[in-house]
Amino acid sequence: MGLFGGIESGGTKFVCMIGSNPDNIIAEQRIPTTNPEETIRQVIEFFNPYVKSKELTAVGIASFGPIDLNPASPTYGFITTTPKEGWKNVDLYGQIQRGLKIPVAFDTDVNAAAFGEQYWQKEKRLLDPFLYMTVGTGIGVGVIVNGSPLHGLIHAETGHIPIPHNWQRDPFPGICPYHGDCLEGLASGISLSRRWGQNPETLPDAHPAWDLEADYIALALVILIYAYSPQQIVLGGGVSQHAGLIQAARSKVQQFNKGYIQSSMIQEKIDNYIHLPALGNRSGALGAIAMAINLAEL
Amino acid sequence: MGLFGGIESGGTKFVCMIGSNPDNIIAEQRIPTTNPEETIRQVIEFFNPYVKSKELTAVGIASFGPIDLNPASPTYGFITTTPKEGWKNVDLYGQIQRGLKIPVAFDTDVNAAAFGEQYWQKEKRLLDPFLYMTVGTGIGVGVIVNGSPLHGLIHAETGHIPIPHNWQRDPFPGICPYHGDCLEGLASGISLSRRWGQNPETLPDAHPAWDLEADYIALALVILIYAYSPQQIVLGGGVSQHAGLIQAARSKVQQFNKGYIQSSMIQEKIDNYIHLPALGNRSGALGAIAMAINLAEL
Repeated sequence: MGLFGGIESGGTKFVCMIGSNPDNIIAEQRIPTTNPEETIRQVIEFFNPYVKSKELTAVGIASFGPIDLNPASPTYGFITTTPKEGWKNVDLYGQIQRGLKIPVAFDTDVNAAAFGEQYWQKEKRLLDPFLYMTVGTGIGVGVIVNGSPLHGLIHAETGHIPIPHNWQRDPFPGICPYHGDCLEGLASGISLSRRWGQNPETLPDAHPAWDLEADYIALALVILIYAYSPQQIVLGGGVSQHAGLIQAARSKVQQFNKGYIQSSMIQEKIDNYIHLPALGNRSGALGAIAMAINLAEL
Repeated sequence: MGLFGGIESGGTKFVCMIGSNPDNIIAEQRIPTTNPEETIRQVIEFFNPYVKSKELTAVGIASFGPIDLNPASPTYGFITTTPKEGWKNVDLYGQIQRGLKIPVAFDTDVNAAAFGEQYWQKEKRLLDPFLYMTVGTGIGVGVIVNGSPLHGLIHAETGHIPIPHNWQRDPFPGICPYHGDCLEGLASGISLSRRWGQNPETLPDAHPAWDLEADYIALALVILIYAYSPQQIVLGGGVSQHAGLIQAARSKVQQFNKGYIQSSMIQEKIDNYIHLPALGNRSGALGAIAMAINLAEL
């Protein structure tokens, strides 16, 4: 089979990996996200020796977005309206494809993470739909329906949906430069930092921040359950890993559902239904490798 | 090809049709929704002569819900947690299948309506995802991904998602017996009747009810666009047909999006992107006929 590359492009770093599966990653590098020219040049330099030695079959890119996923579009593979300075309308796919001259798979970071969590655990491949929500610096949702990432007009942008905001309990106006108090605006890591004036990792367990955050995550999960009717949800991202947060969010999901959707997955087996990533913080990059393998097999 | 049956089961009536396509419906009957025994008996009596004459190949049911769509479940084909009195845990599929003894297709009323709007307009079959939202007595969303209705844990229950509720502008607590002020609780036809104390059909165009309703429908549409990234949305149901409402909702969608999702379908072609049903109020029953044809062709 040879080797495959995975790139998870994020607002602070590009994680690059080369390998054949999660237990066989032979090279890995974190490249800081500075300007597109410099960052993309370093990404190409990392992979190029393996292209020249003909060991690398294909590469997958798991990108922050929004991105253009329409193969018929003149801007296919571009990052489009991101608030990240310097990265608007950047041809990420094209530059990497032209730099490496091997097949390149391209999708959102969260679609790649969802794909990877399912691909690398064969017993999960029949779960349909299968979701991955990241609550980290930002919030995003990856959706796999019948084995394929959900595209369409663009791709899911569920991180930016409007959600109930109780201004009396939470007078913080939200940080989304587009929508203010959308889900990402109220519940992302950046929102936590700004609302409480400190890095969320330094907020003690008893701080009221965590009960409010569990409420927002549970609201988001209920929306995901009602909208997609998923058979399983992976809750990734740095914020989600705070001790006790996923447990609190699970019981609030049961509470907010009010018994409406009657399923043993919600009422009894919610620990299996909503869980942390099996691949830890590598879901995106390992998902990109899975996408590259999938592309090569087509 | 022979003839096919379509049943749209609703809270007030069961619409039954027999035909081969929207322009060839040879029999139609509206049966009041009383108790399950009486209503289902009348449905079977309507179709039975065509089964006996061997003209009827298959029947489709477009049902109100929630319903059990898991073929492996002992309660496959049941209506499950409906608030409709007497209709909880009713084996709708099984009783009709045993009564008619021909193949029966079964799905939600809104999945059937979405399927029918796409099936009967061949040029729309490649639109993916394709959505149908009804705003009538209740609110529901049908989702077609890659030509198939979205199932999963159960099926989409997007009518019951939590949405922003500005209590100062709208102190009405909502009418959903489960969630109070979910989308259906705040914006369904029943909610309009209770909030304003009159049938929504009698509310004049200038009544503030309609601006509030347009806001709620636009919020729902933005959530659908962000969550599913649909290539087209059909807005059905009685409330949606109020003069000017869809136009108002479309411009509020553009306003609420704040330029985040950059697509000509939203910015320029929103009249084509969000539109009333091509099949009028027959989308559900004609969709059920399309499901029956699809089942017979498998």
